[in-house]
Amino acid sequence: MKLLRFGPVGHEKPGLELGGKFYDASALVRDYDEAFFAEDGLIRLRNHINSIPQQLENLLPPIPEGTRLGSPVARPSKIVCIGLNYEDHARETGAAIPTEPVIFLKASTALCGPNDHIEIPRDSTKTDWEVELAVVIGKRARYVTEANAMQYVAGYCLHNDVSERAFQLERGGTWDKGKGCDTFAPMGPYLVTPDEITDVNNLRLWLTVNGQPRQDGNTRTLIFGIPHLIAYVSQFMTLLPGDIISTGTPPGVGLGMNPPTYLQPGDVVELGIDGLGTARQTVRAFTEED
Amino acid sequence: MKLLRFGPVGHEKPGLELGGKFYDASALVRDYDEAFFAEDGLIRLRNHINSIPQQLENLLPPIPEGTRLGSPVARPSKIVCIGLNYEDHARETGAAIPTEPVIFLKASTALCGPNDHIEIPRDSTKTDWEVELAVVIGKRARYVTEANAMQYVAGYCLHNDVSERAFQLERGGTWDKGKGCDTFAPMGPYLVTPDEITDVNNLRLWLTVNGQPRQDGNTRTLIFGIPHLIAYVSQFMTLLPGDIISTGTPPGVGLGMNPPTYLQPGDVVELGIDGLGTARQTVRAFTEED
Repeated sequence: MKLLRFGPVGHEKPGLELGGKFYDASALVRDYDEAFFAEDGLIRLRNHINSIPQQLENLLPPIPEGTRLGSPVARPSKIVCIGLNYEDHARETGAAIPTEPVIFLKASTALCGPNDHIEIPRDSTKTDWEVELAVVIGKRARYVTEANAMQYVAGYCLHNDVSERAFQLERGGTWDKGKGCDTFAPMGPYLVTPDEITDVNNLRLWLTVNGQPRQDGNTRTLIFGIPHLIAYVSQFMTLLPGDIISTGTPPGVGLGMNPPTYLQPGDVVELGIDGLGTARQTVRAFTEED
Repeated sequence: MKLLRFGPVGHEKPGLELGGKFYDASALVRDYDEAFFAEDGLIRLRNHINSIPQQLENLLPPIPEGTRLGSPVARPSKIVCIGLNYEDHARETGAAIPTEPVIFLKASTALCGPNDHIEIPRDSTKTDWEVELAVVIGKRARYVTEANAMQYVAGYCLHNDVSERAFQLERGGTWDKGKGCDTFAPMGPYLVTPDEITDVNNLRLWLTVNGQPRQDGNTRTLIFGIPHLIAYVSQFMTLLPGDIISTGTPPGVGLGMNPPTYLQPGDVVELGIDGLGTARQTVRAFTEED
């Protein structure tokens, strides 16, 4: 299944992608949130769909083209990000290759839709991009083993782990300052369930800025794979249903360019991962409250 | 007002402290959560109380003694912590005095009641204590000025920012790994509204372990004061109603002792802040799932 959420910010409804078109699934499910995943919502939704004799496309209202998409997962309790998880990317940032996963948290207020604007914060000069594969947790995970870890996966999403490098690296303290700004977590278009992905360890992920290739990697070069990451994070904190682990970015971020190059208002960022869809974000400067 | 939450983990109800006793306020309010604060719940609750001619104590059901207390604030979107915000504490940890606030995020799954057990995680050898004044945000705050910042305060709580020093400092990456373990954010007993606090910049805060004094500080020695912290954090991320900013800890943590001394199963941690009440946590080792 490919789950999506659509509608105005803060009022998103659940939907489904079927045959390339989007359908309103709010008659079947309330939302794709912690309760949905905790209460076996994915299984129930699939059973429900399978029990319908007609084509689902004929029963669900289509979503008009041009409708805004939100994050395919409603606000999770946390977004755990993994830093420097592609060897080449660690090198381009000048960091040492980590011997165990680097963890940081991204404020969930950063979450936005896959095609929303990226907003450059006030006083920002170094807003950067990072295409990433995000893993959505399906059930409560605490001290899970690597062998069992994949049982905890609800699905996968395309994620741009937008990062303000000056806030992250030059303002003291932890990375969190440059990772959690509003609009810094465009997520989606879909949550794609694992059955739709042949090999999650062999997915191309790419990102362009104004049509220029910037990132082009493959999940097979992850330093720490998905089962390891889930098991590892669950040693430090309980993962709740709907929580997100973003698995790190391949080389090609602005910080690694010579000279370093960052996003400017009007820039268009496009990104995609095999099987998880594509997203397109236009950059704008922070303006006063909407 | 002094707000509290009581009952079993995950099923807490809202209550009030009145004249040293605890009363069930669930007939007046659903919960002390994001929606409560966003919808002017504090004002409505106060108006409601003021409109009752009789003594409130005679109308609300008393909470039986010995009832568990939960965090006085239901799970917030985020817990933002400030590091090294007392000069003497920065010195004892060997860190430089920060020139601007150090920010990190604490996983909200760490939140627990003021008298719950502190659970030493698996493989932990350096679980440490940190008494802190936590500020609860009352309304959405984004790019607020220091001059207006106090308008965004719903109240204050006693908080133990429990920290695993090896996870925090020796395992690579950011501090978040050692700050967000389950039970690492005992909060409460109360959310105390600002009208009950004469001078938030002159509150004694203290902590003992097995009756031995460990921390004894005063909020007047904060490097960055509360209005500055709210304004500062709101430059990097939107604060939502119910979000928590924990303002840092005074000297006297285990990491700063000679030799460093950490919590052991059976230890009893007691802490308090003038006007915000006291808390008592017994330490135990992680055991298999309850």
